Amino acid sequence: MKPEQTLFAVDHFQKERERLNALVMSYAGLGLKRFYSLDSQAYHEGALSTKVKEMLGLVASFVLRCDDCINYHVIRCHEEGVGDAEFEEIMTIGLVVGGSITIPHQRRAFDVWDQLKRQAEDR
Amino acid sequence: MKPEQTLFAVDHFQKERERLNALVMSYAGLGLKRFYSLDSQAYHEGALSTKVKEMLGLVASFVLRCDDCINYHVIRCHEEGVGDAEFEEIMTIGLVVGGSITIPHQRRAFDVWDQLKRQAEDR
Amino acid sequence: MKPEQTLFAVDHFQKERERLNALVMSYAGLGLKRFYSLDSQAYHEGALSTKVKEMLGLVASFVLRCDDCINYHVIRCHEEGVGDAEFEEIMTIGLVVGGSITIPHQRRAFDVWDQLKRQAEDR
Amino acid sequence: MKPEQTLFAVDHFQKERERLNALVMSYAGLGLKRFYSLDSQAYHEGALSTKVKEMLGLVASFVLRCDDCINYHVIRCHEEGVGDAEFEEIMTIGLVVGGSITIPHQRRAFDVWDQLKRQAEDR
Amino acid sequence: MKPEQTLFAVDHFQKERERLNALVMSYAGLGLKRFYSLDSQAYHEGALSTKVKEMLGLVASFVLRCDDCINYHVIRCHEEGVGDAEFEEIMTIGLVVGGSITIPHQRRAFDVWDQLKRQAEDR
Amino acid sequence: MKPEQTLFAVDHFQKERERLNALVMSYAGLGLKRFYSLDSQAYHEGALSTKVKEMLGLVASFVLRCDDCINYHVIRCHEEGVGDAEFEEIMTIGLVVGGSITIPHQRRAFDVWDQLKRQAEDR
Repeated sequence: MKPEQTLFAVDHFQKERERLNALVMSYAGLGLKRFYSLDSQAYHEGALSTKVKEMLGLVASFVLRCDDCINYHVIRCHEEGVGDAEFEEIMTIGLVVGGSITIPHQRRAFDVWDQLKRQAEDR
Repeated sequence: MKPEQTLFAVDHFQKERERLNALVMSYAGLGLKRFYSLDSQAYHEGALSTKVKEMLGLVASFVLRCDDCINYHVIRCHEEGVGDAEFEEIMTIGLVVGGSITIPHQRRAFDVWDQLKRQAEDR
Repeated sequence: MKPEQTLFAVDHFQKERERLNALVMSYAGLGLKRFYSLDSQAYHEGALSTKVKEMLGLVASFVLRCDDCINYHVIRCHEEGVGDAEFEEIMTIGLVVGGSITIPHQRRAFDVWDQLKRQAEDR
Repeated sequence: MKPEQTLFAVDHFQKERERLNALVMSYAGLGLKRFYSLDSQAYHEGALSTKVKEMLGLVASFVLRCDDCINYHVIRCHEEGVGDAEFEEIMTIGLVVGGSITIPHQRRAFDVWDQLKRQAEDR
Repeated sequence: MKPEQTLFAVDHFQKERERLNALVMSYAGLGLKRFYSLDSQAYHEGALSTKVKEMLGLVASFVLRCDDCINYHVIRCHEEGVGDAEFEEIMTIGLVVGGSITIPHQRRAFDVWDQLKRQAEDR
Repeated sequence: MKPEQTLFAVDHFQKERERLNALVMSYAGLGLKRFYSLDSQAYHEGALSTKVKEMLGLVASFVLRCDDCINYHVIRCHEEGVGDAEFEEIMTIGLVVGGSITIPHQRRAFDVWDQLKRQAEDR
């Protein structure tokens, strides 16, 4: 039960994501490629900042209850400088909108958040 | 096909919402009352502004595809000063996350948005 | 704003349901017919009473947010003798599990419930 | 209760869809436009025929329970020459996968299908 | 392939749940705390017994397809004295309402149920 | 990080599925048994070929985001002779309809597909 074992492996998550994205792209036709491209463009700075867009992506993923999507946007929110209180308020809106069925995802989201913060402190 | 007929009846929507909320409250026990109270508190100014919180509520409602919830948050976003470009970017993130299954809701959301803007101009 | 206009038309709901069920059956093969048959058998008295089963059907329909399914089970719960306090507790569990996204359905469910009670009193 | 009243208004459905699509496009940025374009390209003839792709779009819309999306794909399937028995088998797979919560949508889908067939016979 | 390895680790499930609940609470503001409190109060004895409420929570979690929520309510139903035949009937209603998409969750739910029974027999 | 470790264990998946199906059947009443029977009959050759039906099952499972169901239909599609280009087009329709929330499932689906192909080549 060492802390290393229970830590959410951000590096592993990112590498596996890249490996599988490359695999998808090796099969992908034009439509699929365009969708993946659209997906990353949607979060680029615009009238709304990337930070706000990542918060929107997080709450949308949260109420739809997709752990990998939640993990991705939790990491991105952390990178964009979302603070503890902001993160907690996103989680509150997500929980109120999505109900107790989201609680297991919420536990895991706070776990990832907590680990990202501790990793940042260790650097 | 007069504009009056196709306009989303914001006033009617609000009144029906209030009538039915009152009906729910006439049956509600403590748990139900507390939930409705939590639901409105979640959007109060905090670390995040009410404007950002309403945008979060809108995108969450949008990907979960509930027209009444979307209508409510579209109205609230309009009241909080969300602009056209911001609204369009929320709709883009919602569409990319939620897919084409959200398109009928998106059409109706833009219809409500467009009517709110025209009503505001008429005043 | 006469009460007749706002009353949920239970009779109309039942007749339209029967008309369309007959239409489906006119096209249905064996698989479809068996599913519809399974669907009604699932609520027959067993280890659990029909009353409890209808409450289960109601909460399941509620969190999945299908108005017609909710209406059907609200009517059936009323027929099976579910009381106000029991109905309110089902609605509370449904709301807590399913979140605020269910609130528009909850408003309509209480509206149907209220009308069924008033109709019963009028007899 | 004249047949004209109960007929699903295909023409009205198409016109309202076009009116709102034009409204969305009047607000749309590049991302939104690209998504709508991707959405129509996905059903173009490829390794799979448009007919099979429309059947895939129908069953996907059906299990996700979006009436407007179902209506659209029922009309497209009818145009692509899907027959009664094929339609019934798509509806059976959709019902088995999606459960009884899809039944109200199934009733409406068969209603639209039946009206499309009667309209075709009238010509 | 020893039985110890395949057994659902109820103790581990409970401990991990408590660890993460404590983590969530360390970040939680008033809104989040109130929601978690509401969530446990909703299942307290009232007009409906806790046993019936846990059955409602189970079927709601089941059709929404959240394994952790299902596990939690399967354990609670077992504690409240739900019997095999009652459990099977809840699973039947859940399957009919939610469709074959719930089958993988149903397999796991019966697996947990079976293990809880065998653990009880071992005591 | 040997290839054996990362390969999706088709054999293990099938065996665990059979073990749990047998467990479910040991508890199942008539309704549950009939549903499981209906579920397999729905994909039998009819007006539509089993191949097309499995493609329908795949896209339905995909947009509902159930990994085990997706795995099952990916394996069945492979057995029925679905080709790379056909599989990619099903995945494109699924992604467009279901949105980016399906992407983690899509990555895993292509991973299983890729492994099935490599296993077939090894024989």
